[in-house]
Amino acid sequence: MSTDDTTESECGASSTETNASNAESAESKCGASRTESPGSEAETTESECGALTSDATASSSSGCGASTESTDEKVGATADDFDADPGSLVAVGLGPGHAEGMTQRARAALHEAEHIVGYTTYIDLLPDEITENADELYDTPMCGEVSRTEEAVDRALAGNHVAIVGSGDPNVYALGGLALEIVESKGATASALDFEVVPGVPAAQSCAARVGAPLVNDTVSISLSDHLTPMPTIESRLHAAAKEGFTITIYNPWSRKRRENFEKCCEILLEHRDPETPVGVVHGAGREDEQVRIVELGDLEELGETDLIDMTTTILVGNEDTYVWDDRMVTPRGYESKYDY
Amino acid sequence: MSTDDTTESECGASSTETNASNAESAESKCGASRTESPGSEAETTESECGALTSDATASSSSGCGASTESTDEKVGATADDFDADPGSLVAVGLGPGHAEGMTQRARAALHEAEHIVGYTTYIDLLPDEITENADELYDTPMCGEVSRTEEAVDRALAGNHVAIVGSGDPNVYALGGLALEIVESKGATASALDFEVVPGVPAAQSCAARVGAPLVNDTVSISLSDHLTPMPTIESRLHAAAKEGFTITIYNPWSRKRRENFEKCCEILLEHRDPETPVGVVHGAGREDEQVRIVELGDLEELGETDLIDMTTTILVGNEDTYVWDDRMVTPRGYESKYDY
Repeated sequence: MSTDDTTESECGASSTETNASNAESAESKCGASRTESPGSEAETTESECGALTSDATASSSSGCGASTESTDEKVGATADDFDADPGSLVAVGLGPGHAEGMTQRARAALHEAEHIVGYTTYIDLLPDEITENADELYDTPMCGEVSRTEEAVDRALAGNHVAIVGSGDPNVYALGGLALEIVESKGATASALDFEVVPGVPAAQSCAARVGAPLVNDTVSISLSDHLTPMPTIESRLHAAAKEGFTITIYNPWSRKRRENFEKCCEILLEHRDPETPVGVVHGAGREDEQVRIVELGDLEELGETDLIDMTTTILVGNEDTYVWDDRMVTPRGYESKYDY
Repeated sequence: MSTDDTTESECGASSTETNASNAESAESKCGASRTESPGSEAETTESECGALTSDATASSSSGCGASTESTDEKVGATADDFDADPGSLVAVGLGPGHAEGMTQRARAALHEAEHIVGYTTYIDLLPDEITENADELYDTPMCGEVSRTEEAVDRALAGNHVAIVGSGDPNVYALGGLALEIVESKGATASALDFEVVPGVPAAQSCAARVGAPLVNDTVSISLSDHLTPMPTIESRLHAAAKEGFTITIYNPWSRKRRENFEKCCEILLEHRDPETPVGVVHGAGREDEQVRIVELGDLEELGETDLIDMTTTILVGNEDTYVWDDRMVTPRGYESKYDY
């Protein structure tokens, strides 16, 4: 049980056991499943959600959603299904994605974790010293956010010290709340799991830093994803934020499904702000394909037709006072007359 | 020029030279002054703003605002007053205040800096390995934010590699914009100074982590300080944010001067939200006197009478869906029916 063995599928989870672990068997409704204990038979399980794990002696690969044999599936395991004393669960914000954006506390939490769970892209960004130190890594692609988080909770309930990771901060459109909701739904408690949130630098701040000082005053974050918030609510919030002089960070600006939301957002902002209002557009912050541009609000909708704006893009909309100087966005802090320089 | 020598005043700056430096002479309007070069005469200069420095052979101490002899004061130095090629200026967000909340990039930026400039409290929180590595530390108490930032700019214009530090993130009610405004006012450019912002974990996120997951959805930050924003604007923003279902982070909730603002804020929030709405109150996050409480909105104004709420306090106001469970605030991510657990 101490070999390095990785199992991956095109759209499935991979679980890598890097060290000896005393994990227990527990599987979840969403298919994020893992069956493994010292001396157990080799087993591979995959579910509709694409979560796939194997113990150290098994290896398999399949397309998204392919099913393989499962011998011990519990659907929606609850706290009572676990015999062990609970371990611990920490939700760790990694910040901008590259290791140097991580806090020292985040790094320490990952070092302390026996299991690290996360979206494949983020697990891949972790430094080797961290991944090699963990007993197990469990990662799933984008399609499995709920199942991945449930897997982390189950592993913690089974007695392991588990870290679940995400980019940015766990309190910003992220897994902090989801983890607590799942812990609660399983009849466990946050206290019993010693649940902790380790904050990280949110995308708003890491992207703002790249364009200067666009968010210095009162500010708003709004996601254009209508998966969890109805579009009329999003529209109403955009109107209010634009009208009240907040700087605005737009999360999740674009996907094929949400093309209309982005267009609507641009229209609403233009109802309240000058077309020349500076807008920072940061694509793939901290990644190889990072692009940073400062544009005018009037040109934003058109940019939605380009590769610059996709689901990895964060958009920073200046307020009435924001100006561009020397390729930086500057939002003054307030009454200029208050300064004595 | 390699001795450790610290000069301090009750409300003045202190400059500590920890190593040899090739600093040039430059002084600024606000009195953040420093005169020093290898082999120069010992000099001490202090100004109205309380900024006080000395070279390594001088030492002095005075009350706030005491003046001492100045031999070479230039008021409001501009870029043209400096003969050297510009150095560099980096605005570094330290995060929650304790060293483990700092990112690796922040730590690296401070290691690279020859001069580190900041509010005394934050300079004191830096790890020894960083402060001992710098050629010079320059810190002033709270009263000197503009002069301190100008001092950092002047030092950079004089050819030094300078880091100016603040807690949280430089884009959140902080020095990012101020630094750029001052660079511009001096006729210099951000490019020439190789100006960079290193983001940090904002107070909203570090405090949210302490109470669970209160900010998971669309969220707003509002400062109650009317020093730079007129109170009617603040009130209007509070109304809009509360009405639109944003979670709300309140910065600068309280000081003797701003008691009325806090009361007004509580009244406005109660016009739109239930008195039982959960509110997280975090006092002195990451400091020795840290206190964390979850209260109800209806009790918030009364708490303003206690030590819990002062200028080191951050307040996190839940939205209509936020609930308290197991001593944590949880803001669900959206339609509960969207989840399959």
